[in-house]
Amino acid sequence: MKSQITNALSDFFFEYETPRQVLVRNRRVGVVCRLIQLGVLAYIIGWVFIYEKGYQSTDTAVSSVFTKMKGVGYTNVNGEERVWDVADYVFPPQGDASFVVMTNYIITEGQKMGKCPELPGKHNCSSDADCEGGSFKRHMTGTCDNATKTCEVLAWCPIENDHNIPDPPLLMSAENYTLFIKNSVTFPIFDVTRSNLVEGIDATYIKKCLHNPRDAPLCPIFRLGDIVKESGFNFENIAKLGGAIGIVVDWTCNFDVDVKHCKPAYNFHGLYGNPEEMDKARASVGYNFRCAKHYMEGTVQKRTLLKVFGIRIDIIVQSLARKFDIIPTLTAIGSGVGIFGVATVVCDLVLLYLLPKRQFYKNMKFKYTESHGQDPDSDAGSTETEVSKWTLQKGTSLHTLSMD
Amino acid sequence: MKSQITNALSDFFFEYETPRQVLVRNRRVGVVCRLIQLGVLAYIIGWVFIYEKGYQSTDTAVSSVFTKMKGVGYTNVNGEERVWDVADYVFPPQGDASFVVMTNYIITEGQKMGKCPELPGKHNCSSDADCEGGSFKRHMTGTCDNATKTCEVLAWCPIENDHNIPDPPLLMSAENYTLFIKNSVTFPIFDVTRSNLVEGIDATYIKKCLHNPRDAPLCPIFRLGDIVKESGFNFENIAKLGGAIGIVVDWTCNFDVDVKHCKPAYNFHGLYGNPEEMDKARASVGYNFRCAKHYMEGTVQKRTLLKVFGIRIDIIVQSLARKFDIIPTLTAIGSGVGIFGVATVVCDLVLLYLLPKRQFYKNMKFKYTESHGQDPDSDAGSTETEVSKWTLQKGTSLHTLSMD
Amino acid sequence: MKSQITNALSDFFFEYETPRQVLVRNRRVGVVCRLIQLGVLAYIIGWVFIYEKGYQSTDTAVSSVFTKMKGVGYTNVNGEERVWDVADYVFPPQGDASFVVMTNYIITEGQKMGKCPELPGKHNCSSDADCEGGSFKRHMTGTCDNATKTCEVLAWCPIENDHNIPDPPLLMSAENYTLFIKNSVTFPIFDVTRSNLVEGIDATYIKKCLHNPRDAPLCPIFRLGDIVKESGFNFENIAKLGGAIGIVVDWTCNFDVDVKHCKPAYNFHGLYGNPEEMDKARASVGYNFRCAKHYMEGTVQKRTLLKVFGIRIDIIVQSLARKFDIIPTLTAIGSGVGIFGVATVVCDLVLLYLLPKRQFYKNMKFKYTESHGQDPDSDAGSTETEVSKWTLQKGTSLHTLSMD
Repeated sequence: MKSQITNALSDFFFEYETPRQVLVRNRRVGVVCRLIQLGVLAYIIGWVFIYEKGYQSTDTAVSSVFTKMKGVGYTNVNGEERVWDVADYVFPPQGDASFVVMTNYIITEGQKMGKCPELPGKHNCSSDADCEGGSFKRHMTGTCDNATKTCEVLAWCPIENDHNIPDPPLLMSAENYTLFIKNSVTFPIFDVTRSNLVEGIDATYIKKCLHNPRDAPLCPIFRLGDIVKESGFNFENIAKLGGAIGIVVDWTCNFDVDVKHCKPAYNFHGLYGNPEEMDKARASVGYNFRCAKHYMEGTVQKRTLLKVFGIRIDIIVQSLARKFDIIPTLTAIGSGVGIFGVATVVCDLVLLYLLPKRQFYKNMKFKYTESHGQDPDSDAGSTETEVSKWTLQKGTSLHTLSMD
Repeated sequence: MKSQITNALSDFFFEYETPRQVLVRNRRVGVVCRLIQLGVLAYIIGWVFIYEKGYQSTDTAVSSVFTKMKGVGYTNVNGEERVWDVADYVFPPQGDASFVVMTNYIITEGQKMGKCPELPGKHNCSSDADCEGGSFKRHMTGTCDNATKTCEVLAWCPIENDHNIPDPPLLMSAENYTLFIKNSVTFPIFDVTRSNLVEGIDATYIKKCLHNPRDAPLCPIFRLGDIVKESGFNFENIAKLGGAIGIVVDWTCNFDVDVKHCKPAYNFHGLYGNPEEMDKARASVGYNFRCAKHYMEGTVQKRTLLKVFGIRIDIIVQSLARKFDIIPTLTAIGSGVGIFGVATVVCDLVLLYLLPKRQFYKNMKFKYTESHGQDPDSDAGSTETEVSKWTLQKGTSLHTLSMD
Repeated sequence: MKSQITNALSDFFFEYETPRQVLVRNRRVGVVCRLIQLGVLAYIIGWVFIYEKGYQSTDTAVSSVFTKMKGVGYTNVNGEERVWDVADYVFPPQGDASFVVMTNYIITEGQKMGKCPELPGKHNCSSDADCEGGSFKRHMTGTCDNATKTCEVLAWCPIENDHNIPDPPLLMSAENYTLFIKNSVTFPIFDVTRSNLVEGIDATYIKKCLHNPRDAPLCPIFRLGDIVKESGFNFENIAKLGGAIGIVVDWTCNFDVDVKHCKPAYNFHGLYGNPEEMDKARASVGYNFRCAKHYMEGTVQKRTLLKVFGIRIDIIVQSLARKFDIIPTLTAIGSGVGIFGVATVVCDLVLLYLLPKRQFYKNMKFKYTESHGQDPDSDAGSTETEVSKWTLQKGTSLHTLSMD
């Protein structure tokens, strides 16, 4: 028993099977097959490995983004001078990845809760009957105001009048604001953490640099006017009604080279439609929201309502890192071998079905077993006979056969 | 030398090797193997290619979301009428992808910094000794208030009393608010940008439409009550204590067809546990936070504290785009060929180990080399002899052998 | 015609082709090849299947995160006692995944719009000529203030003086604040939703637990001081100038086992550089922003400006779920078979080009077709002849050949 196992093992280890092959000497088939095989090889090496880097596995990053705006805006409305600093024009103030820079506004000061008539043009009425109470947009009291011929509403009064949007935008000076972006990315699978303050971007450099796609592509400080221009917008247009711009921080890294070469690239694009479409009738143009500052006047609660038109900036981090990995490499090789097999099948089809001497090659390639007693296949038998006849007629040299 | 290379090259190009095969004529083995092979083929074509679309590569999108609520809430607390507009009930105001709509609140007006006793039930005391100063939840002064029998604390006074949550919720009118979602997605690998304002969703349509899973699945305007209902909650329940709802914008796109067919689908679900569990004792029910509005009364800093109960809405963008790609296609084919190879191995096992005539097939399939001088394998030699004997005994026809 | 199809079909189903192989009995080749094949097998089974779980497909989650801070801070500046509650020190208040906990501040009270000289050290001047109006950082009026010898600016006056940052930080008590994290993840492909309030984390447990990597790794309540310490920072250092900490909630799940085992792990790390580098000259140290509270004093708009230094906390959800899937399994097997093919090719190279008896094995493996009339390859013919000669010289036993 033990010697049987030993024998089986020694048989297994000292033997080796390799497929027997026919070496077909035929120019046409040879050239066609070699070209197919070379094509497959070129595809696997050139395309899968070199171009698409199929020997690498990929990873996307988790990231966090902080922002800081700098600059002061200046408005002069009816002789009243005002400056707007960061605490006034950035919403929210704490430096999120997504924020709004106010570029235009409609201010309604001293609002208090009360009853007042609607603006002309909205909810017109001739009598109280036209002002049926209740609407999810306005809370009507059911009274028609005789002076304005509009319904009276319970609301923060006076009601904001946003029919006329200031043009030119009040905060055109926003063009000169600067934005500082801090971005940290971590590739969890490769265990690499990078910051957009890469090697060479130190405190001294940051103090004086300004991002420029050509001269300073790694400077993390951006002029708002440049961002808008790079996105294809006209600053005055976007500043008036607001808009949304995405700043894509693109981390495309190859960790087979030094991690120092993993650097961000910054791209800018409008988030809703092309800038050219801004002027046309679009589903939704501009970007605005309302924001209230509450205060007490004696015992009366009041608020200043600000309808803010602004540039919404979304910092979008996009990442794709690659590194050599044994599994995709061997998967690519393995399936490449499979495709090689397909190439052989194609060549065999040519050899066995298209060539004039196909019957000859068929006999070279295949060995037939006899049809057995339990298989009464008369045609299988006849094929056999036919084949052997053909072989003899064609005079396949005996020495080739015996040499086999 | 040169002619040798030429010869080697011509040999390489004009020759072609193809494996020699045995064509086994055996019904049982034939049927089994063909079925296995057809099964593999059906799997590769049917499952990998057609069902799972294995010929496509995939990409997920980077996205940005903006939101805008509309509607006015109305409260009447102890005869004091008030309306709440967007600037009052949405936190934060600037239209983020994640925000809270206030549906209930506890207001504590006129708080100023000072010392006052704790609420009854918290930090009860009978003497100053019970009020040892310092706790990370309250800053105690170390004095026991005789009137209330609670410790005195340094805090914004009067202290908020949140024992009684208004029921029914004060802002039931929130049910009629509408939410407008703007969502832009970019698939970086396929370089496609889409907005949820797809073809046909223009300004006219948006003005009058309201999202409905059946009639208006693409309208980006949602009634808050509908969102809550679709998530399986009861509006009054969720409005009272708050809750969290995710709106999933699902972009499942096939870029092998026209990009126009890439449209979002909207789904709604509760983010923490099933709605049914809301009433049970759960780890954490509801959603609330505190928010203060500061003001000055003369030289005294005061604040109005608002404990906000609300529906937190998270817009979650989920995306998966597919497009034909040569690499996954060929990888699928290549590994399919490999599985074909496995099928052949299985059939060979049947043929060589299970069939009664296995020895016959073994001889057909294998050619044995002699055991060489340096390999003193006596059993290998005996196997050889046995095989040849067996071959002769079985009377394998000589013409088959010579025909080979 | 019909019988032809029947015959073709019966031929197809009753026949089965299997490659013919040479069984080489050679110790060296056998051992080498078997070891290569066992290595490939071990790689496929051990590495691809067991270690890398190649039989599983993967999915990443969409997630939503809510946070809630608790605790009260206390400051005593020049004898003025104050407490800071959540509504005062968390920005933004509504419980986002990314927020700032104030740990230090510079307060500038009672600012109003007006003209005042710059701080000493900034924009020094000796005459009005030095104060050319306009800068995007300050809006200068063009006047040189004689008393301070600095330019006069239009700004919120008095101007904030942030030269001296309070040290020690004013809100050292922030160390004891607690953070409650609620996190819900959904794996869309596997259709599984999990919350970080997993089985066993109920209301009772949450009330008394505090996260600890060893004793309470699943408790979702974190002490701020612990978070800072786990990230490797010193609390007093980070509290003074601010900093950024990422809390990574790591969902690495295997859905082949019960979904109950899918539990989050919490990790903490500094987001910008190592904590050790905090003291060195870095590109950008600390975290601060400005925040204004507006109020009216009579008819004059005033504001309290707060320069907030704080710990920015980003909750980063990282997820990777795996589940058995037939496609990666079969792809792995298929490409494994392909790699097996590569192993055979390597062994064949050894056999046919490196062994002394390579010519013998070549003849065993290959069968040559004659060079045909249209191929005047004289060398091909000579190879043939040489081979046959060699065969005869070596005296390969005839019975082996005829047995074939």
